[in-house]
Amino acid sequence: MLIHLSSWPEIDARLKQTKTVVIPIGSNEQHGPTGLLGTDWLCPEIIAHAAEKTDESLVVAPTFNIGMAQHHLAFAGTISLRPSTFMAAITDWVSSLSRHGFERIYFLNGHGGNVATIEATFSEIYAEWSFVEDRPPFVLKLRNWWDLPGVMGLCNSLFPTGHGMHATPSEIAVTQAAYPERIKTADYSPQIAPNGPIRDALDYRARFPDGRIGSDPAQANPEKGQKIIDAAIPALLRDVAGFSNETLP
Amino acid sequence: MLIHLSSWPEIDARLKQTKTVVIPIGSNEQHGPTGLLGTDWLCPEIIAHAAEKTDESLVVAPTFNIGMAQHHLAFAGTISLRPSTFMAAITDWVSSLSRHGFERIYFLNGHGGNVATIEATFSEIYAEWSFVEDRPPFVLKLRNWWDLPGVMGLCNSLFPTGHGMHATPSEIAVTQAAYPERIKTADYSPQIAPNGPIRDALDYRARFPDGRIGSDPAQANPEKGQKIIDAAIPALLRDVAGFSNETLP
Amino acid sequence: MLIHLSSWPEIDARLKQTKTVVIPIGSNEQHGPTGLLGTDWLCPEIIAHAAEKTDESLVVAPTFNIGMAQHHLAFAGTISLRPSTFMAAITDWVSSLSRHGFERIYFLNGHGGNVATIEATFSEIYAEWSFVEDRPPFVLKLRNWWDLPGVMGLCNSLFPTGHGMHATPSEIAVTQAAYPERIKTADYSPQIAPNGPIRDALDYRARFPDGRIGSDPAQANPEKGQKIIDAAIPALLRDVAGFSNETLP
Amino acid sequence: MLIHLSSWPEIDARLKQTKTVVIPIGSNEQHGPTGLLGTDWLCPEIIAHAAEKTDESLVVAPTFNIGMAQHHLAFAGTISLRPSTFMAAITDWVSSLSRHGFERIYFLNGHGGNVATIEATFSEIYAEWSFVEDRPPFVLKLRNWWDLPGVMGLCNSLFPTGHGMHATPSEIAVTQAAYPERIKTADYSPQIAPNGPIRDALDYRARFPDGRIGSDPAQANPEKGQKIIDAAIPALLRDVAGFSNETLP
Amino acid sequence: MLIHLSSWPEIDARLKQTKTVVIPIGSNEQHGPTGLLGTDWLCPEIIAHAAEKTDESLVVAPTFNIGMAQHHLAFAGTISLRPSTFMAAITDWVSSLSRHGFERIYFLNGHGGNVATIEATFSEIYAEWSFVEDRPPFVLKLRNWWDLPGVMGLCNSLFPTGHGMHATPSEIAVTQAAYPERIKTADYSPQIAPNGPIRDALDYRARFPDGRIGSDPAQANPEKGQKIIDAAIPALLRDVAGFSNETLP
Amino acid sequence: MLIHLSSWPEIDARLKQTKTVVIPIGSNEQHGPTGLLGTDWLCPEIIAHAAEKTDESLVVAPTFNIGMAQHHLAFAGTISLRPSTFMAAITDWVSSLSRHGFERIYFLNGHGGNVATIEATFSEIYAEWSFVEDRPPFVLKLRNWWDLPGVMGLCNSLFPTGHGMHATPSEIAVTQAAYPERIKTADYSPQIAPNGPIRDALDYRARFPDGRIGSDPAQANPEKGQKIIDAAIPALLRDVAGFSNETLP
Repeated sequence: MLIHLSSWPEIDARLKQTKTVVIPIGSNEQHGPTGLLGTDWLCPEIIAHAAEKTDESLVVAPTFNIGMAQHHLAFAGTISLRPSTFMAAITDWVSSLSRHGFERIYFLNGHGGNVATIEATFSEIYAEWSFVEDRPPFVLKLRNWWDLPGVMGLCNSLFPTGHGMHATPSEIAVTQAAYPERIKTADYSPQIAPNGPIRDALDYRARFPDGRIGSDPAQANPEKGQKIIDAAIPALLRDVAGFSNETLP
Repeated sequence: MLIHLSSWPEIDARLKQTKTVVIPIGSNEQHGPTGLLGTDWLCPEIIAHAAEKTDESLVVAPTFNIGMAQHHLAFAGTISLRPSTFMAAITDWVSSLSRHGFERIYFLNGHGGNVATIEATFSEIYAEWSFVEDRPPFVLKLRNWWDLPGVMGLCNSLFPTGHGMHATPSEIAVTQAAYPERIKTADYSPQIAPNGPIRDALDYRARFPDGRIGSDPAQANPEKGQKIIDAAIPALLRDVAGFSNETLP
Repeated sequence: MLIHLSSWPEIDARLKQTKTVVIPIGSNEQHGPTGLLGTDWLCPEIIAHAAEKTDESLVVAPTFNIGMAQHHLAFAGTISLRPSTFMAAITDWVSSLSRHGFERIYFLNGHGGNVATIEATFSEIYAEWSFVEDRPPFVLKLRNWWDLPGVMGLCNSLFPTGHGMHATPSEIAVTQAAYPERIKTADYSPQIAPNGPIRDALDYRARFPDGRIGSDPAQANPEKGQKIIDAAIPALLRDVAGFSNETLP
Repeated sequence: MLIHLSSWPEIDARLKQTKTVVIPIGSNEQHGPTGLLGTDWLCPEIIAHAAEKTDESLVVAPTFNIGMAQHHLAFAGTISLRPSTFMAAITDWVSSLSRHGFERIYFLNGHGGNVATIEATFSEIYAEWSFVEDRPPFVLKLRNWWDLPGVMGLCNSLFPTGHGMHATPSEIAVTQAAYPERIKTADYSPQIAPNGPIRDALDYRARFPDGRIGSDPAQANPEKGQKIIDAAIPALLRDVAGFSNETLP
Repeated sequence: MLIHLSSWPEIDARLKQTKTVVIPIGSNEQHGPTGLLGTDWLCPEIIAHAAEKTDESLVVAPTFNIGMAQHHLAFAGTISLRPSTFMAAITDWVSSLSRHGFERIYFLNGHGGNVATIEATFSEIYAEWSFVEDRPPFVLKLRNWWDLPGVMGLCNSLFPTGHGMHATPSEIAVTQAAYPERIKTADYSPQIAPNGPIRDALDYRARFPDGRIGSDPAQANPEKGQKIIDAAIPALLRDVAGFSNETLP
Repeated sequence: MLIHLSSWPEIDARLKQTKTVVIPIGSNEQHGPTGLLGTDWLCPEIIAHAAEKTDESLVVAPTFNIGMAQHHLAFAGTISLRPSTFMAAITDWVSSLSRHGFERIYFLNGHGGNVATIEATFSEIYAEWSFVEDRPPFVLKLRNWWDLPGVMGLCNSLFPTGHGMHATPSEIAVTQAAYPERIKTADYSPQIAPNGPIRDALDYRARFPDGRIGSDPAQANPEKGQKIIDAAIPALLRDVAGFSNETLP
């Protein structure tokens, strides 16, 4: 069940059966010379929507499409929230969904740069309860899609070299499978991009002139992308089921 | 050109030709017994993407899908930002797009409840410059899709009675044209919903038990929706062109 | 009863009879070559205090004299709050008055530029309750003094041309009636000021060099101002009574 | 020159002669069984406006009438800003006045409870400059009206016993001189109110049941109030002149 | 009992006997040509830890070592919080300690520049309760170590001239007693530093080129420092006992 | 060179030779039945101060002793900042140190729970520069002391079982080496504490009743702690040197 394509009475009825909601969350940011700017929010959306097609009982929220990408701001098309803004927005999403009775809120994340801020937000949210000796009526979970059981292993076997950290062939392949009419090509060199620390935007652009980190995205193709999606679907459904069924102390 | 389905070099190249970007912005909130929760962000997205198909030179950002909907929070599936959060997020979107050289930032809005906060945000952003005797490198514009020239007149002629204020047949028809497989039906009464003030969520639900205000959405059908979309496309393109070409004093 | 000229036991006693309070709210900002900088907070204060003289049972708070006027900051004497500051301050006023038992809080506004931020603030305040499924112990209402029933019709009949949007003859006439010793004259041209969009302060000053928008304030005189005040007094008393007596769902 | 009763060209012209502005600042809060709720903002307003009548070259801003009075919130009619809100608002006033070229900004304060927050605000404002090795284009000064040279000595001689800390006969006398038609009487006991620490609102009300601290306000009369005003006027003018003429290092 | 050198079960057990905690709080800022940058947080730490050695029942929190020192930022080594940050941090300390059952929270302060912000913070904290007609479960107290009964008198007798306001021989002597291996000497002139107002950092450095205000710190020696410490210990223990035993209304 | 035990002229002189500063940062939180509440800020302080004794050219700031520990708040003595407060405070430390010319700011961290918030803060700080196409005048680095090269390997060899995640024998041993008079013992069971997710404070206490996660801290002794310190000292000095000498692109 996709929330945005449902009516409120449908969600109301569904809440009698499940208290879990999945939020695809990502970022809109440069993904190298060939990657789509939406890659990091499209990937979790693609996987979550495909999982919902497999098992319609999965409740999927609209996609949280702008995250923390300050280091990519020297590349056109990147849109970033400051961490403090990102924290406020996640908090309001959680407050809204909790208001309706969702008790297990699962963020399926598509951007490594979001992780620290999402975790800090969870602590900010929990702190409201921890300071007053009360328990929140919800549990929060963050899962990167590539950390779903079995997925990273598959990615590594598909792309044994040049997988890298940013604009990886895995994520680009996933978007190619979903948007084959948007596949782009470009010459770039070196074939495998360099690695290095991530700091501010100008430092990033100086280190990684075409935006890639450690990757060779030309290895991507839609077939490999579909394999990743096909592996991620059952992994996500199992992971969400485990989260839904977890007994709290 | 849809930013999220483009690469950064494509946006970089496009910025040599245009400095204008359109952001579809809306809300994810209850739309009565039959309307989709995503109605208010789907409508501007549908119109902006259709306009981009007509004229690919239009640069369209990802959709800002969660807005200010605190008064709908008593209906399941609604997700709202607090006005202060909404303001921070809009500010960061503007800062990001301005960073790349966009000088005319056009918000195509799909939710009346967003208007006050978006306008307050524009003032908050401008104030940074007004306090220091400097000019911002961008101009901001808010346009509700139903206020595009000619659109509201069409809506009124299509739905002479029972158009109302919320969960209107117009907006529901637009989503039906784009998502015909998601058309929902329901019995409701009275046929035309009541009107009244908008305050907090429980007050809202007490006044408007099924979520509608003043509307009879059963009048919607995909054909009427398509007519509205077809009228909105050229109106949007002309409105954006006028904004792009406006001479500043 | 003017709160600031009363003692706390007097307010305490009055709260046994009424739960409604009126807050004159405006802005301190340029009003063209002849208008007083205080015009926008003086007008609602003048009307509210005159109404209180007519019916002493009206409880009037001190005047909230600084609002959102960032666009006027290029003219000397303007004092503006950022929207975010304005929101925080209104929130604290509401919290204070609610603390004492006021349940209907009515803002009589004198500045169009305040409207968006005041409405956003109402939503910010209501959101605290909407997120937690509770009802606030108060209801908030915003009324511009020129929107009191009958007032704008009178203004238009008094000034059929050159009324305009800012530094209008209506508002200047109201201040002339109350402060006849402060009437100012100046040459200006064109006789009727231009219209245009409102953005940042330097853009504003470039478009509207003497500060007026669409108006010819030389038409103002104290007699016309008194007529407006005389029309506004009973309209305000009726509007406040209607608000006080409104049944909540 | 009172800013709110002037036009912007008048302020513009005056700024060629002086760079100093005086802001009366106070609080709207209970002042015991007989004191006006507005006492703390009326007193600095009365004194500043009287000084402006004596020397019209004094530029006086509108009165900042709501301050930090959380400890008085258990008494009806009190309106308080949180310290954080108060800080934001003062900052915006300073930014606005500095924008026009005022370089010496003098706060004439009427409420002891404001002092800590105003001083903290000055530091918050200065910090913006201190962190970046730059100098602010303005200097800020806080002066309580009773600390103007000679004033407290006069108050003590007029009220040798029962002057106290809150709802003092001095401040009440000042308001009586200005608003003789608003003089109130009440029985209270003990004749001189107790002293004690100031904490939250319920603690305050438990310690000081009628609101007074250490004072016997029945000693106030308009004549004594006028003497205080008459002493404060030249003291203020000299103090402001000294501030205006101070050479910066 | 020093909290940071105890285990949680030890604190848990101690809370059965006392509800009072002492927080040494200060600043890390320049202290003239010879003073340690840590002087203002070392002094209250030295005194509180010495008092805890005398009476182990005293519960002492870790030292809050960074305060409000924006005016010292033109001198290397100074670290300052903005007042707003300082307020947030103090609030979280109070929330944490209150969470465990501490009901009397005593700040032993070592920096005059902290006083306004700490007091504003107390009001910010209390305001949460004052706005909602509830009492906080704790009482807050601020005491500067030099204001402990008897201490300032001793300081003045030890240093009858050149005590001054900043980098005083008293505070430097206290650090010399505790850190005799860190005694520094320097030539400076004039022997007694000038006095003047405190504003932003560059203004401060221009007025007070070596950082001192009104002081002649060369008079300090460890023996005098030890005398001050010895006087402060019993004064602190008595002051804390009085605070612990105070009956609330 | 310890900043807090130096004078400002000493820091000023040192800044001519080095632009790097090390900030020990941790948390004050429960560490199981035997660990000191200060463990997480004492460990990096112990190591950094020991390194400074070895190589006095190392500039060490005062210890940032309170971090993000909301999940430990159900255990007495824990003091936590909210993530948002923590972010503001770190930002002000960085602004202060950068103001003096420090260009490489190295945080030696002692608390795993701090990592997400510190990284989010770095992004918040960098974002100020990334949004405006400018480079910050400093580079930030976070290093957990146990991640210094060679340290974790040593810890694992010293404690092959029962090292765990919280209240580890490693960290407790480090504090025992530095504070041998504060070694505590307690019976606990199970010998090795359970593992599990970290959420709010009551959830934490329910899962980990004595506070430990996965650890058996009774294995700690001062000798092992000294070995860890001895390994960490040269590793820290080399890591800081590498950071200082890193060439920026």
